[in-house]
Amino acid sequence: MNNIERNMAGSADTIKVIPLGGLEQIGMNITAFEFGNDIIVVDCGLSFPADDMLGIDLVIPDVTYLTDNIDKVKAFMITHGHEDHIGALPYVLKQLNIPIFATTLTMGVIEHKLKEHDLLDSVKRHTVQFGDMVRIGSFKVEFIKTNHSIVDAAALAIYSPAGVIVHTGDFKVDYTPVFGDAIDLQRFAELGNNGVLALMCDSTNAERPGFTQSERSLSKTFDTIFTEHRNTRIIVATFASNVDRVQQIINAAHRFGRKVVVEGRSMVNIIDTATALGRLSIPDNTLIDIEMLKDYPEEQTVIITTGSQGESMAALSRMAMGQHRKVKIGPMDTVIFSSSPIPGNEKAVTKVINELFHKGADVIFQDAHVSGHACQEEIKLIYTLTQPKYAIPVHGEYKHLKAHAKLAEELGMDKENIFILKSGDVLELSAESAEVTGEVPVGAILVDGLGVGDVGNVVLRDRQRLAEDGIVIVVAVLDSYNNNLVSGPDIVSRGFTYTKDNDDLIEEAGAIAYDVLLHMQDRGITDWGKIKANLRDSLNEFFWKSTKRRPMILPILMEV
Amino acid sequence: MNNIERNMAGSADTIKVIPLGGLEQIGMNITAFEFGNDIIVVDCGLSFPADDMLGIDLVIPDVTYLTDNIDKVKAFMITHGHEDHIGALPYVLKQLNIPIFATTLTMGVIEHKLKEHDLLDSVKRHTVQFGDMVRIGSFKVEFIKTNHSIVDAAALAIYSPAGVIVHTGDFKVDYTPVFGDAIDLQRFAELGNNGVLALMCDSTNAERPGFTQSERSLSKTFDTIFTEHRNTRIIVATFASNVDRVQQIINAAHRFGRKVVVEGRSMVNIIDTATALGRLSIPDNTLIDIEMLKDYPEEQTVIITTGSQGESMAALSRMAMGQHRKVKIGPMDTVIFSSSPIPGNEKAVTKVINELFHKGADVIFQDAHVSGHACQEEIKLIYTLTQPKYAIPVHGEYKHLKAHAKLAEELGMDKENIFILKSGDVLELSAESAEVTGEVPVGAILVDGLGVGDVGNVVLRDRQRLAEDGIVIVVAVLDSYNNNLVSGPDIVSRGFTYTKDNDDLIEEAGAIAYDVLLHMQDRGITDWGKIKANLRDSLNEFFWKSTKRRPMILPILMEV
Repeated sequence: MNNIERNMAGSADTIKVIPLGGLEQIGMNITAFEFGNDIIVVDCGLSFPADDMLGIDLVIPDVTYLTDNIDKVKAFMITHGHEDHIGALPYVLKQLNIPIFATTLTMGVIEHKLKEHDLLDSVKRHTVQFGDMVRIGSFKVEFIKTNHSIVDAAALAIYSPAGVIVHTGDFKVDYTPVFGDAIDLQRFAELGNNGVLALMCDSTNAERPGFTQSERSLSKTFDTIFTEHRNTRIIVATFASNVDRVQQIINAAHRFGRKVVVEGRSMVNIIDTATALGRLSIPDNTLIDIEMLKDYPEEQTVIITTGSQGESMAALSRMAMGQHRKVKIGPMDTVIFSSSPIPGNEKAVTKVINELFHKGADVIFQDAHVSGHACQEEIKLIYTLTQPKYAIPVHGEYKHLKAHAKLAEELGMDKENIFILKSGDVLELSAESAEVTGEVPVGAILVDGLGVGDVGNVVLRDRQRLAEDGIVIVVAVLDSYNNNLVSGPDIVSRGFTYTKDNDDLIEEAGAIAYDVLLHMQDRGITDWGKIKANLRDSLNEFFWKSTKRRPMILPILMEV
Repeated sequence: MNNIERNMAGSADTIKVIPLGGLEQIGMNITAFEFGNDIIVVDCGLSFPADDMLGIDLVIPDVTYLTDNIDKVKAFMITHGHEDHIGALPYVLKQLNIPIFATTLTMGVIEHKLKEHDLLDSVKRHTVQFGDMVRIGSFKVEFIKTNHSIVDAAALAIYSPAGVIVHTGDFKVDYTPVFGDAIDLQRFAELGNNGVLALMCDSTNAERPGFTQSERSLSKTFDTIFTEHRNTRIIVATFASNVDRVQQIINAAHRFGRKVVVEGRSMVNIIDTATALGRLSIPDNTLIDIEMLKDYPEEQTVIITTGSQGESMAALSRMAMGQHRKVKIGPMDTVIFSSSPIPGNEKAVTKVINELFHKGADVIFQDAHVSGHACQEEIKLIYTLTQPKYAIPVHGEYKHLKAHAKLAEELGMDKENIFILKSGDVLELSAESAEVTGEVPVGAILVDGLGVGDVGNVVLRDRQRLAEDGIVIVVAVLDSYNNNLVSGPDIVSRGFTYTKDNDDLIEEAGAIAYDVLLHMQDRGITDWGKIKANLRDSLNEFFWKSTKRRPMILPILMEV
């Protein structure tokens, strides 16, 4: 009888693991854990829109399963303060106001978000310390120290009568972190000794062999770059949320006697929050306001900025395009990308790099970054310490989950004990058995401006068509007695062709619409649906033949 | 007196180098060389649309400078058969019918293209052999054997009374190519000995240290993969134009006793062309028709397919999405991406990989590809052999040109002899001097369906706005006597919000439009421009306040 069997013996109860997002993509992480009448929810993240989600600002998970079981849902347990783990909270809390448990900086970042959405007074919050054990109904949840690209990241040990599930959150193993302690490997080992039912482990870097470099290794990199570029201003772009990275840049600036300017709204916000919470320590007389930049020689200043992903509205992009009011880029600048492009952002980043070079700056965009996620050897370490009965790879696209599953197999786990789930799967676990027993509704809800969920497939399809070939509107006025043509048809187009150069085309289209309308009138057809369908078909055919394009054709009939 | 000075002494004549594209991007390569009354043009490529060129199929260079000097323009010299070097030919030849000079396979690919555009009879073509010297007016042009990811790639030595310019085309140094000889380094050395005025060299991989691997190194890779996956079908995706790669896959299939199916229109075309021209040799009884796939066990077949860039309509993507009529993907498939994603295609490629994994296939997407472009050591080799007086880095974005210029400097070239040009610059060169003396019109002409140049900034801006937030059309019928409202206003929207769920919003917008129209009527305003502007402003404001979106507002007034 192994440890797990000892712990579980006699228990017929099962715990349900229900991922509501995060398994088909990197983003929108949210998982429900259900035992009896209790549900706790780990993380509540957003994702950024896919390329075909035109005009969409962000995407949040469908939490119908939670609102349908609102009496059972007890709390959110948040692993760390990144958008893909907390970004949907303000939206979901409006449907489901339950308490939030999180560590210090994570809560600081959440509170900033709640404030913006005017939710600070109505949402209960509990800041936890590493090692704390939170009791929620039949669950106990322990927050375990890990390392990641934001301070105060936690793994969770979720205790239930059915067994212990370890959820790593996003993590890496950093023996020499910049702030605080290394990941609490001892605790992972103890949990393993006592028996772990299932491990839900970060898959982001499961395709990468080896070990992720320590954050601290960059301190040498910065020293070298600062030494080599001692005669220019230095501008460093990185993720606002990477507080440790910001700390390192500030430290390097301090070592080299440079003043630091922080630029970009999200960067200013996180630095304020982290400083207030003691997660960032800025030497006195180091920070200066951007207005004071002109009072110092270039070689005595560092600008830490947003925009490392080439986001068009971010501070660095505005500098590169010459649209930043306070910072002009020139040959006296060295720009460091302390980041790597997120897949999909490569071209935007390259565009910014090219612009910076064009303006005479030196640009360093390689080797000034380390990942915040565990590579293969670290993943193997966590498996070896926790010795789980079941493996549930999380946080990745299918190819990452697959690579992760392969690692687990290589470590000797039974294939049937490794579960590559999809969002919505209900996995029921006990020491005796593990099985996907059902499915709950899941989905992506699109947020566009103030609208949450009012843009769906129909609207997106229309936007795609409009984007591709534009729209042609044909308007006619019919009399209400016999549907005879009174005025028009007028043809108006947008995004189709430059009409000033294409008078003939539009005129010909008008003639075709006129023929259709007269023909319908002659045949005594008064069904507007039919008239519109005929206009659409005739113009579609005409435009395809003459231009090989398919603009949206929109007939509008008016009655007088 | 060095070699160049010896050769040039006494000549006051200059040669003009005028890039008409290809210097701000990888794509749309075309350069004019002008001496006295003669212009020759090297390459005539297209580029693929940038992300913000919605609905555009391809982009071709503005050749106004050539049509303005049509009497001087004598010939196209084409370095190799890739789209970014030949793709604009059919469009430009319609404006400028001049003879084409190219090597065997390059001409084969061009002819296929001309046929599609019905230009085969009207365009003069001259196939040249390596070592041939083509005389055109005051120019002589020599085609020099190089290596690249398509067979028969050539560098050009362009002789003029002002000196010799060496243009490498796209190249790598492959000592063990799969077809034909290694790059003719001896010839580069001889040219160097005799004095080279300027070197125009490929910058694509100028950021990468070291030496690009030989194409032949992949033969071992394929052997390993074929051995490890001897029990499954093997599907290999690569660029259709990479004839050597296709040869290697066929060779591997043959070694392992597998039949080969070729899938994807462009793949079939190039294989036909290359086979007919002796650039591809397929062992007897190896190729089978796709219809015969079912007659062979999976482990005895290989499919070579298009779609390595995740292009949504390509064969591999259709297989991955389960939309391919002849090939169903399953656990009996191993799919090899013998390619690396072109920047911007990463997400599309990853989507296909995820789908393939989902269907149970094994997917190999790393280490089965080598580049076709020279890395830093190869670039240095060409400089060292040719010893140019001037360096003009070509074929790259600004950051590549910049990295290339740095290499040239490291080799000891004078900074003022290295020219990072922009498209349109007129660089005048002689042994005595080199200077940008002017600028000619250049630009990108957008091709959308049959339309060449009829989509410009106005249409693109409209498409972007339509894509972002859709369109709201407000139609009203006014009487022609006093502009009084007779019918409407009706509100119709597309791509804005799902109107069935937003009756109120559209109704309220209608009420606002109605108020505007009555107000104008009351004030006796009959200027339609004013009425439309008022409708637009009021609705813009209303929608921004209520949705934080900015749909295009299109007022249409009809008169009865």
